[in-house]
Amino acid sequence: MTEIQLGDNQYGKAETRLVRVDRGGDTHVVTDLNVTTTLAGDFAATHLTGDNSGVLPTDSQRNTIYAFARDGVGQIEDFALRLARHFVDTAATVTRARIAIEQYSWDRIPATGHSFAQAAGTRTVTVTYDGETATVVSGVADVTVLNTTGSEFRGFPRDRYTTLPEMADRILGTSVTARWRHRDAEPRDWADSFEWARERLLTAFADTYSKSLQQTLHAMGERVLSGDDDLVEIRLALPNKHHFLVDLAPFGLDNPGEVFFAADRPYGLIEGTVCRADAPDPGLAWW
Amino acid sequence: MTEIQLGDNQYGKAETRLVRVDRGGDTHVVTDLNVTTTLAGDFAATHLTGDNSGVLPTDSQRNTIYAFARDGVGQIEDFALRLARHFVDTAATVTRARIAIEQYSWDRIPATGHSFAQAAGTRTVTVTYDGETATVVSGVADVTVLNTTGSEFRGFPRDRYTTLPEMADRILGTSVTARWRHRDAEPRDWADSFEWARERLLTAFADTYSKSLQQTLHAMGERVLSGDDDLVEIRLALPNKHHFLVDLAPFGLDNPGEVFFAADRPYGLIEGTVCRADAPDPGLAWW
Amino acid sequence: MTEIQLGDNQYGKAETRLVRVDRGGDTHVVTDLNVTTTLAGDFAATHLTGDNSGVLPTDSQRNTIYAFARDGVGQIEDFALRLARHFVDTAATVTRARIAIEQYSWDRIPATGHSFAQAAGTRTVTVTYDGETATVVSGVADVTVLNTTGSEFRGFPRDRYTTLPEMADRILGTSVTARWRHRDAEPRDWADSFEWARERLLTAFADTYSKSLQQTLHAMGERVLSGDDDLVEIRLALPNKHHFLVDLAPFGLDNPGEVFFAADRPYGLIEGTVCRADAPDPGLAWW
Amino acid sequence: MTEIQLGDNQYGKAETRLVRVDRGGDTHVVTDLNVTTTLAGDFAATHLTGDNSGVLPTDSQRNTIYAFARDGVGQIEDFALRLARHFVDTAATVTRARIAIEQYSWDRIPATGHSFAQAAGTRTVTVTYDGETATVVSGVADVTVLNTTGSEFRGFPRDRYTTLPEMADRILGTSVTARWRHRDAEPRDWADSFEWARERLLTAFADTYSKSLQQTLHAMGERVLSGDDDLVEIRLALPNKHHFLVDLAPFGLDNPGEVFFAADRPYGLIEGTVCRADAPDPGLAWW
Repeated sequence: MTEIQLGDNQYGKAETRLVRVDRGGDTHVVTDLNVTTTLAGDFAATHLTGDNSGVLPTDSQRNTIYAFARDGVGQIEDFALRLARHFVDTAATVTRARIAIEQYSWDRIPATGHSFAQAAGTRTVTVTYDGETATVVSGVADVTVLNTTGSEFRGFPRDRYTTLPEMADRILGTSVTARWRHRDAEPRDWADSFEWARERLLTAFADTYSKSLQQTLHAMGERVLSGDDDLVEIRLALPNKHHFLVDLAPFGLDNPGEVFFAADRPYGLIEGTVCRADAPDPGLAWW
Repeated sequence: MTEIQLGDNQYGKAETRLVRVDRGGDTHVVTDLNVTTTLAGDFAATHLTGDNSGVLPTDSQRNTIYAFARDGVGQIEDFALRLARHFVDTAATVTRARIAIEQYSWDRIPATGHSFAQAAGTRTVTVTYDGETATVVSGVADVTVLNTTGSEFRGFPRDRYTTLPEMADRILGTSVTARWRHRDAEPRDWADSFEWARERLLTAFADTYSKSLQQTLHAMGERVLSGDDDLVEIRLALPNKHHFLVDLAPFGLDNPGEVFFAADRPYGLIEGTVCRADAPDPGLAWW
Repeated sequence: MTEIQLGDNQYGKAETRLVRVDRGGDTHVVTDLNVTTTLAGDFAATHLTGDNSGVLPTDSQRNTIYAFARDGVGQIEDFALRLARHFVDTAATVTRARIAIEQYSWDRIPATGHSFAQAAGTRTVTVTYDGETATVVSGVADVTVLNTTGSEFRGFPRDRYTTLPEMADRILGTSVTARWRHRDAEPRDWADSFEWARERLLTAFADTYSKSLQQTLHAMGERVLSGDDDLVEIRLALPNKHHFLVDLAPFGLDNPGEVFFAADRPYGLIEGTVCRADAPDPGLAWW
Repeated sequence: MTEIQLGDNQYGKAETRLVRVDRGGDTHVVTDLNVTTTLAGDFAATHLTGDNSGVLPTDSQRNTIYAFARDGVGQIEDFALRLARHFVDTAATVTRARIAIEQYSWDRIPATGHSFAQAAGTRTVTVTYDGETATVVSGVADVTVLNTTGSEFRGFPRDRYTTLPEMADRILGTSVTARWRHRDAEPRDWADSFEWARERLLTAFADTYSKSLQQTLHAMGERVLSGDDDLVEIRLALPNKHHFLVDLAPFGLDNPGEVFFAADRPYGLIEGTVCRADAPDPGLAWW
């Protein structure tokens, strides 16, 4: 038997649900978050002997999230940076921290200044800090989009197991998960940057004539990067939510691209990265 | 041993996913549905002996949904009525049909006339038809709303197990499921009616000063019924999505209604009906 | 405008998660429950004016569950009866209570007397009490079963929309939800009764040659009722989890009932009741 | 603006649901899988210009899964190896393939030789092949376990935000996700190896007196590696499913470790690796 040793490890508090209400202005502002903290460092003692003297409880991590929210949350990039720096700078055994936040969207119900209805789509951020460098990856998740035309899939190789016909006009549907890395963690107008990127993603999805979902993915990524030199890398995951044309011929009917079955599983899954040639090393951005 | 016999029974096809694209106009229209058919009638033979001569396959029910969609879907109330009448009128053993449809919302992405992004909230309908009378119950589901003030809960009885403090100002959050019964199934502008009812639900939720979620529920129901004499009954189910004020005192901080923990379980669940005194008998509307 | 009035209503605490550990014996016993309380009665005041003097908080209902568990939980039928009677007998405005409990199964990990691994399947109970009569409905949920042969579906009517071929040998898969009503609420060995009924359901599913899922459903219900005169009614809901034979002919392969695609949606849904001729009136058992 | 370029990318078919029935013996054998294929290679053309000549359709990947199943599936490690090698060896643009499979467990219903009931827990495999080396990572998921004693958490550091009391005896619950890497991909009795590893994981969870979930994690990993020199690395992710002792003092009751609230969110999340000093380079095993 060869020696057995402890390898990479980390721990934290997952999915702390924080709702912050700002009541200062004429209307209230609601910030609705799901926060996950993950700490890495020298935790060998607890793994090997159960000595917890270096293990800041995950309960304390949750408390920290709530206590920090007392001063205001602001943009999730800023809040994640505050938390990441706090854990690395104050917990003796912690050498790096990752803070991942999901933010749920709320529209105003116009009848009052304190009423809201939840909207679709999630804004995300992942901040990583190692004591020297902080990286910020902003993103979206659960943004489901659909083109009813302007999409084809043709010219693919046909092996022994290929039965798919060439498709000259298909529905293209996907649920967008996109995460883009900022050049650095310097303060900026994160909200503006997010809205701008989100809008470009949607527009690129819509106005790109698509010969493949890969092409659409690349166009979406390029559209975001090409407009802001401080965005250096973007990663997208796009499930191909298949819509199959229903064969109505048995019922004496044609089906000129009108009636579809929306399938659950299986689904294609296209993942890709678009990056800037001069992007700084990602370091821990994507761990 | 006493005699054992077959009791109530029904069957159908659940969750047929239909996407219909209307390409006729300058811009495309997408209709995204989840359709469930349920048939009741004389099905004793198949239960008792496996004689299926009276069992229209659920596969045929699914096919019917797709074939009917070829002529257009229109409003889900109309589509459900077409399907319900078809099954009762053509299947010999079927004496009543219930068609339940969920419709998912899509907003336009303005870049093209064929691009869409999924929005929050589901529109629903349940149509029941027994060969003579059709009832139509329209509704919404998955509409999550929040008031950051204007809600209290006080004056409740305190038994041995009561520890809840009186709450003078709390967050009130819920996910609205509401279903309203129309007086009859005569053709009308179902889309208009739906949008009107949905807007009134949201507005009543927002502008009602709430002493209890029950009071809010009743106000929402009354707001809908009071504006349209042809809506005769409304049933609401409102989970009380608790937001607990976090105690920040251990960290030397106050918390004047700003930092909350959004809990998953348990949750209060308030269900209630508001109805019109002259409402026709519901018959099978809610089975 | 005609008069608008409050109709049926109820409220309670949904999904209180209770884990009870009995440490008295040589080995520990764990009871893992999800409890939902629902109270009905005279709650008009809170709906109409926000007067909460008759509204026992759902928070108190949760507390009651935990406090009652201090004395032991025992069988879920007994625990639900205790809770139902408590709320009706002590809360002035409450005229009936429904207590629904899901119990999760845990197997022992044999290495110790205090270690467990979660097993599949859920045991359920719904108790209803109106101050005079208590009804007890025991059941199972999430029991997924499969026969790889012994199932056909033939002899069904063929309408214009029927394309399904006759199937002489198919996979029959379903997820069993079954609920059986006891003749009365007198104390008995609920655990024994449950295990006996569950075993009969599984055996009937397995050893019934199935000409339709309806026939299987009826056989399962009859198998349970026929063995215990005190079980007076059983309701089953059986989704037909379709397994489609994959056409391998395009690849030069036959497929003699070996390779299947397990589909998600749509699915058939068969619901049925088997009851005893002398069953007492169900009253509120199924509300 | 600096140059923008395509980065890492991959694609495949996710969640192909395959059920294989072996009918050859006295009793049937059912193999129930969820298969995901992911291919990497030179796909720049489709991303940049929509030239699909190098993009084997995900539809063909699904077909391949079903066609290969015709010859039998066997152990999921073998099936994944077959598929991975096929894609890399036959698709011109594909330089590496990852095949991830989830296998659902079925127990026999003893009444027949063709009847099954689904059991808890999932067996997993991920195979990666780059044309030269294949790596095999076997695992389990969704194995939920609980110790009602034998767990403490003490001696942790207390910062400004720490309120957690020292816990001398707590419930320890988790849902095990574990994946262990084999030294090589040579044929072996994968079923035996899996059952052996699974049993050791459960036993180590049970019989380790736990001063922290990290310690339990390490003990579980070490228990697996220490028994088989051909297992070179194991990664575990263990959510700490918190069970909070309910304070019954307001009701005049003590609570000597008997009544708990099982919380959903947030939860601790402990992730760690145990590895052998002479483990071969993981290469692409974990990408």
